[in-house]
Amino acid sequence: MRSEARTGVWFVGARGSVATTAVVGALGVSHGLAPSTGLVSELAELDPDGLTPLGNLVFGGHDISSTTLTKKAESLVAGGVVPAEILIAVAADLEAVDADVCLGHAAGEETTEEAVERLAGDIADFRRRYDLVRVVVVDVASTQPPVDDPEQLTCLDDDLPVGAVYALAAFRAGAPFVSFTPSPCLRLPVVIEAAARAGLPYAGCDGKTGETLLKSVLAPMFVMRALELRSWTSVNLLGGGDGETLSDPAAARSKTVAKRSGLDAMVGRSVPGPMHIDHVEDLGEWKTAWDHVRFDGFLGTRMTLQFTWEGCDSALAAPLVLDLVRLVSAAHAAGLSGPLPELAFFFKDPVGATEHRLSEQWRDLVAWRAGLAG
Amino acid sequence: MRSEARTGVWFVGARGSVATTAVVGALGVSHGLAPSTGLVSELAELDPDGLTPLGNLVFGGHDISSTTLTKKAESLVAGGVVPAEILIAVAADLEAVDADVCLGHAAGEETTEEAVERLAGDIADFRRRYDLVRVVVVDVASTQPPVDDPEQLTCLDDDLPVGAVYALAAFRAGAPFVSFTPSPCLRLPVVIEAAARAGLPYAGCDGKTGETLLKSVLAPMFVMRALELRSWTSVNLLGGGDGETLSDPAAARSKTVAKRSGLDAMVGRSVPGPMHIDHVEDLGEWKTAWDHVRFDGFLGTRMTLQFTWEGCDSALAAPLVLDLVRLVSAAHAAGLSGPLPELAFFFKDPVGATEHRLSEQWRDLVAWRAGLAG
Amino acid sequence: MRSEARTGVWFVGARGSVATTAVVGALGVSHGLAPSTGLVSELAELDPDGLTPLGNLVFGGHDISSTTLTKKAESLVAGGVVPAEILIAVAADLEAVDADVCLGHAAGEETTEEAVERLAGDIADFRRRYDLVRVVVVDVASTQPPVDDPEQLTCLDDDLPVGAVYALAAFRAGAPFVSFTPSPCLRLPVVIEAAARAGLPYAGCDGKTGETLLKSVLAPMFVMRALELRSWTSVNLLGGGDGETLSDPAAARSKTVAKRSGLDAMVGRSVPGPMHIDHVEDLGEWKTAWDHVRFDGFLGTRMTLQFTWEGCDSALAAPLVLDLVRLVSAAHAAGLSGPLPELAFFFKDPVGATEHRLSEQWRDLVAWRAGLAG
Amino acid sequence: MRSEARTGVWFVGARGSVATTAVVGALGVSHGLAPSTGLVSELAELDPDGLTPLGNLVFGGHDISSTTLTKKAESLVAGGVVPAEILIAVAADLEAVDADVCLGHAAGEETTEEAVERLAGDIADFRRRYDLVRVVVVDVASTQPPVDDPEQLTCLDDDLPVGAVYALAAFRAGAPFVSFTPSPCLRLPVVIEAAARAGLPYAGCDGKTGETLLKSVLAPMFVMRALELRSWTSVNLLGGGDGETLSDPAAARSKTVAKRSGLDAMVGRSVPGPMHIDHVEDLGEWKTAWDHVRFDGFLGTRMTLQFTWEGCDSALAAPLVLDLVRLVSAAHAAGLSGPLPELAFFFKDPVGATEHRLSEQWRDLVAWRAGLAG
Ligand SMILES: NC(=O)c1ccc[n+]([C@@H]2O[C@H](COP(=O)([O-])OP(=O)(O)OC[C@H]3O[C@@H](n4cnc5c(N)ncnc54)[C@H](O)[C@@H]3O)[C@@H](O)[C@H]2O)c1
Ligand SMILES: NC(=O)c1ccc[n+]([C@@H]2O[C@H](COP(=O)([O-])OP(=O)(O)OC[C@H]3O[C@@H](n4cnc5c(N)ncnc54)[C@H](O)[C@@H]3O)[C@@H](O)[C@H]2O)c1
Ligand SMILES: NC(=O)c1ccc[n+]([C@@H]2O[C@H](COP(=O)([O-])OP(=O)(O)OC[C@H]3O[C@@H](n4cnc5c(N)ncnc54)[C@H](O)[C@@H]3O)[C@@H](O)[C@H]2O)c1
Ligand SMILES: NC(=O)c1ccc[n+]([C@@H]2O[C@H](COP(=O)([O-])OP(=O)(O)OC[C@H]3O[C@@H](n4cnc5c(N)ncnc54)[C@H](O)[C@@H]3O)[C@@H](O)[C@H]2O)c1
Ligand code: NA
Ligand code: NA
Repeated sequence: MRSEARTGVWFVGARGSVATTAVVGALGVSHGLAPSTGLVSELAELDPDGLTPLGNLVFGGHDISSTTLTKKAESLVAGGVVPAEILIAVAADLEAVDADVCLGHAAGEETTEEAVERLAGDIADFRRRYDLVRVVVVDVASTQPPVDDPEQLTCLDDDLPVGAVYALAAFRAGAPFVSFTPSPCLRLPVVIEAAARAGLPYAGCDGKTGETLLKSVLAPMFVMRALELRSWTSVNLLGGGDGETLSDPAAARSKTVAKRSGLDAMVGRSVPGPMHIDHVEDLGEWKTAWDHVRFDGFLGTRMTLQFTWEGCDSALAAPLVLDLVRLVSAAHAAGLSGPLPELAFFFKDPVGATEHRLSEQWRDLVAWRAGLAG
Repeated sequence: MRSEARTGVWFVGARGSVATTAVVGALGVSHGLAPSTGLVSELAELDPDGLTPLGNLVFGGHDISSTTLTKKAESLVAGGVVPAEILIAVAADLEAVDADVCLGHAAGEETTEEAVERLAGDIADFRRRYDLVRVVVVDVASTQPPVDDPEQLTCLDDDLPVGAVYALAAFRAGAPFVSFTPSPCLRLPVVIEAAARAGLPYAGCDGKTGETLLKSVLAPMFVMRALELRSWTSVNLLGGGDGETLSDPAAARSKTVAKRSGLDAMVGRSVPGPMHIDHVEDLGEWKTAWDHVRFDGFLGTRMTLQFTWEGCDSALAAPLVLDLVRLVSAAHAAGLSGPLPELAFFFKDPVGATEHRLSEQWRDLVAWRAGLAG
Repeated sequence: MRSEARTGVWFVGARGSVATTAVVGALGVSHGLAPSTGLVSELAELDPDGLTPLGNLVFGGHDISSTTLTKKAESLVAGGVVPAEILIAVAADLEAVDADVCLGHAAGEETTEEAVERLAGDIADFRRRYDLVRVVVVDVASTQPPVDDPEQLTCLDDDLPVGAVYALAAFRAGAPFVSFTPSPCLRLPVVIEAAARAGLPYAGCDGKTGETLLKSVLAPMFVMRALELRSWTSVNLLGGGDGETLSDPAAARSKTVAKRSGLDAMVGRSVPGPMHIDHVEDLGEWKTAWDHVRFDGFLGTRMTLQFTWEGCDSALAAPLVLDLVRLVSAAHAAGLSGPLPELAFFFKDPVGATEHRLSEQWRDLVAWRAGLAG
Repeated sequence: MRSEARTGVWFVGARGSVATTAVVGALGVSHGLAPSTGLVSELAELDPDGLTPLGNLVFGGHDISSTTLTKKAESLVAGGVVPAEILIAVAADLEAVDADVCLGHAAGEETTEEAVERLAGDIADFRRRYDLVRVVVVDVASTQPPVDDPEQLTCLDDDLPVGAVYALAAFRAGAPFVSFTPSPCLRLPVVIEAAARAGLPYAGCDGKTGETLLKSVLAPMFVMRALELRSWTSVNLLGGGDGETLSDPAAARSKTVAKRSGLDAMVGRSVPGPMHIDHVEDLGEWKTAWDHVRFDGFLGTRMTLQFTWEGCDSALAAPLVLDLVRLVSAAHAAGLSGPLPELAFFFKDPVGATEHRLSEQWRDLVAWRAGLAG
């Protein structure tokens, strides 16, 4: 019976902010300590009762950091992301999850083949250990730089980005894969072919949580109203771990490319304007985005929209990660394989899809979910 | 042949900002002096070639002001709404339109029956004078206070709001009617029955041009993402004519009621938060709206979205007025009657419709238009 | 020796947010648990070593609420104003302070003479009980409505606002008085004369903590640059206790009058623009102010400044209350009496002063402090 | 008699936006077509009647562009900086000024000695031609990159930045010099010594017109209130000519260095935070600055101030240029020489001064002016 079948969630980057918030949150919500706010998969349109309950998820993962989930969770409490009382209530469970975190893979320390074999072994062990019906692997590791010629990466001997190594390991272990980070890995022939061979579904890339989410409703508004976008300036101030990673220009490029392409796709042409991602240490787990949009109206009248978004990134990302686990799990159960374009709703840079407008993505998602359920 | 058939546009409030901008703009765009920015009816999805060309529109109307359209247009040039070169190019045409503005109706100066008869006569004369296939009447007169018991207003002897008098005159003259102002008139039994008897279509109320437009894409975003709206504060600073009218609290109430109800409908419950409409003289034709939105995310994290919209109200409203004329004209040609809920896309307070989400309204509009064309 | 002499602080409204934050903060800072951020009296220019150390302050007060300081402090921890670890460290001291809170006076429950006598007795007892060199009374009770004819209130038999009753009690007990709330009381003849008779100093009114603070540097900037202010719109969204009080229009009037008059004084003429104070429950202890400033530059160019201030009101007010206690205490020690206009720096509506510009107020304050010390 | 004596204004960059706006504005204001808004030297505190009237200024200058002042002025009218009616009224005068624009100096086209001699000759001819009591040279040419070792530039044979060449030419012609651009030139030994030898006054650098102006009142506010600045993010979106120049990172560096150093000086330590200057073509003559300021209050409470400044840069700069001409002219008449630190009020990067706080700069300016007049 479904409600008894347990599903594994294997995080790449299991000790990071997003993974930790997802674990603490799943435990907290399933114990009734917090409402289901932010969980799209709990909306009636997605038939939550037909999805794996949060309480049936079992967590583990890879990381290269030795800071435990508990320590990370404490810093999330201090940063105002996780309420202290929830952490206290789930502390023991959290330590148990940390015991299921294995050493991750860092470029250069083993051959790709060795790494894939080892990592796949960890995932398979985890599934056996807990007698799980399936494991969904979700990459929430640090952002990595883009790759120059993705289409040239066709075999394990090529110099593969670490995200691809994890995807290959997931597929070798028979697990569907979700890339929640900005990553080229789901566009590499070597990865696509491995998924096809294994008959497994995958989804990505780069969770759509803040400014890009707003763009995905605001840009269509301008288009539907025949208003002419003249420039769109985006400034993102990020504290915390990912902010630090993104202060490396190469990594940031991954992110800005993903963010910009969606806007241009929705508008049907390139909209000029600077895009900044800045690390502002003291913002901690929080992010402030300021966008300045110049558009023309009737007879060329010059108008402006500005917005400031003050969000907690991990709190925005974590429930989507859980939604993706539940939906990809359902897709796997239904025997789907290859890219899942109907999950574009969740991503900045959706694999297999060209639709960036949120409302249309929502409609596609709801229809797809209804089809799965039927 | 369609492209030769001329259609009349009869404005109630013909010498106001919105009407004047619409007339100048229609002339300017049809003479190739400005692009079609802001004209929704020029988007491919609405099959513009099947609609009356802007150059085939003939304008006239009622007003109680003696300030000519030319004078008004000059103030719109000074206010940065209309480019000087366009006004120069259309000056003669504009004077001709002003010659077709008749004296409007003010409460208490004649009986309703006398008024309806006189106003309907003006409209009918206009149609004959220019040999028009039809006339669409559009109410863009000053905002008027709401009515206490709309459902009690069932006959001409009741104390009817002026908008209703114009609607009745339109129907008596065989013309479809659009209420672009905040107005109770399309919900009065006396008006609804007159339209039914005449077999005429109508649409309204209150053009959706600024803050409410933004709400109609942002509120659904929060809902689709299962984010919990805790408060939504709206501040509107308005200069100009309509700003002055709205500094009358009774008139403003019309506007705030329309604005708030849509938000609650989209969210499915009442969202608290103050709503202000202030007259700030020095803003002239411009409007600044500031909204502050507090919402909760996963585990109760408190987040905020703020936006500032700086728009030119008449430039936002005028193209929609022209869109409505073209679409209602097509509906009339197709023999439709009664409320046109598929035009909800254009209104804050759509008559006959409960849908406030812009993307869904757009889908409905496109489908309806396709049906008309077929 | 100064460092051993203890000074009493008697709060009217001792169980409110501002008083509680001041008490917890004074204890926390003097125990080295928090830096002196926000304490103006700790800046070198004000010679902090010559002022009563925070550790030598002893707290008590009046309130009409029975919610203890501890309970209030817990809600301030929940609201993110006070760090949990500080509350834990000072919990016992805080309970001791609560034991020194006496029942306050509410209009109509006793004659003014009875009230003054009773309240003065409480203050005098407190001084004796702790062997204090002096007691400074600070009114941080809920905002009260303005009075229609302040200059008519000349004796105890008149219908006095409660703030005046507390001021009279302070003076009868030989204590200087600070009005940190918006209040007419320091402008009533009956109060002014009582202070004069008692030879006591006083300061007020209405702590300058947020938007008005910003105005006091921004308005002078426009003036020094010969830029023409055309309108200044102010919107204040307040949660919490004071927000609720201010949703009463009569009380809010006290506040908006104080806020507006300063701007006009700095600019030298009346600057139009709406001013709103709104209660937005879910903001809790926080306040968001949005100001929109329209100004003209050279040749009439139209420009705009907008700002959004997101502050924690009690955290802004509490250190100023402590600064005022220390400075008024020094003034009393130096034998000063009557209004202290050099403390205008701290107030929206400074008694005895016409200067509203922050930099000039700062200069006056520093000079005055130097004079005291000399 | 003063009011008859004519003073020359020689612009380096005479055909740029700032110079053109200054010329058009001086003519417009002196002909009574516009009020003196934005002219600090018309404030009573600076004794305007003792300064050269705007109508007594005679304009000329150097530029390397062949676009005439008239053409530039037309584009300023189109961009909403200069009212059309003023340009029409001063068109003939403007053409006359353009006839007094000589070919400027570009690096590499002549030796520095040749250039200085030629440029000085142009200035001297101008003075003779119009029988001027003196000529003030003001550098409003395009921003230039900073110099690596300013203190090494001691003689004409060194590789001097173009601004320095103009300063040397001014001094050779006996004219005081104002550097309104971001420029290292007033800090080069070769320039300082030339001014000393000639006994001439000079002032600079980099007019303080927008975001830095706001910083010069806001940063002192935080300091006076003992609030702890944690980060200050600055984003500048610039259209137009200078925006294009500044999209060259080397030139932008000049500007950001000047902007950041003042903040750190006012706060007394380095305040972290990104600073961007972006070219956004469609903003035209306008600039939008967004600043995000994170500060801590009492007990470490985290607070935020954001502001958006929408200004017209040339309209902000032009009156200051005229103010500087009048004040430097008065200094020259009074026999002053060397740097004029009391003019720090006008500059982002004041030469000879360490004071960045606007109110203190204002006080110094007013006192200095009073001394001059005495
Ligand atoms: N938070 C959001 O709103 C959001 C939105 C979209 C995407 N993302 C992406 O999610 C990812 C995680 O964000 P975060 O805030 O949790 O970052 P984080 O820095 O807190 O966590 C990243 C974790 O990945 C681990 N890691 C790094 N390299 C690894 C490797 N080779 N193998 C295994 N683990 C590795 C790190 O040790 C760390 O624990 C980022 O890539 C971010 O861009 C986040
Ligand atoms: N501009 C927008 O974005 C927008 C959006 C939605 C709705 N509207 C509505 O459109 C209407 C017009 O706005 P506007 O800016 O043109 O206002 P306006 O004040 O410039 O024009 C209103 C005109 O109506 C005329 N009028 C008043 N009473 C009349 C009567 N009894 N009979 C005939 N004419 C009468 C006035 O004389 C005036 O010429 C307003 O009701 C406004 O609320 C505007
Ligand atoms: N927080 C700020 O930034 C700021 C700035 C300026 C002024 N103020 C003023 O400070 C005052 C206190 O603010 P708060 O946030 O602490 O409000 P609060 O509502 O938390 O506290 C007010 C306290 O006064 C008590 N009180 C009410 N009537 C009383 C009476 N007759 N006698 C004795 N006590 C009485 C209440 O019981 C309550 O405990 C308000 O008047 C507010 O306007 C606050
Ligand atoms: N507008 C403001 O608010 C402001 C504030 C501070 C400083 N500034 C500075 O003022 C300067 C002028 O700004 P603008 O907007 O007028 O720019 P602009 O580009 O419109 O004008 C610059 C002019 O300098 C000329 N020029 C370039 N090199 C020259 C040379 N070698 N010799 C002579 N002329 C030369 C150009 O041809 C052009 O006409 C810039 O350096 C800008 O940074 C402006
Ligand atoms: Na603007
Ligand atoms: Na905030």
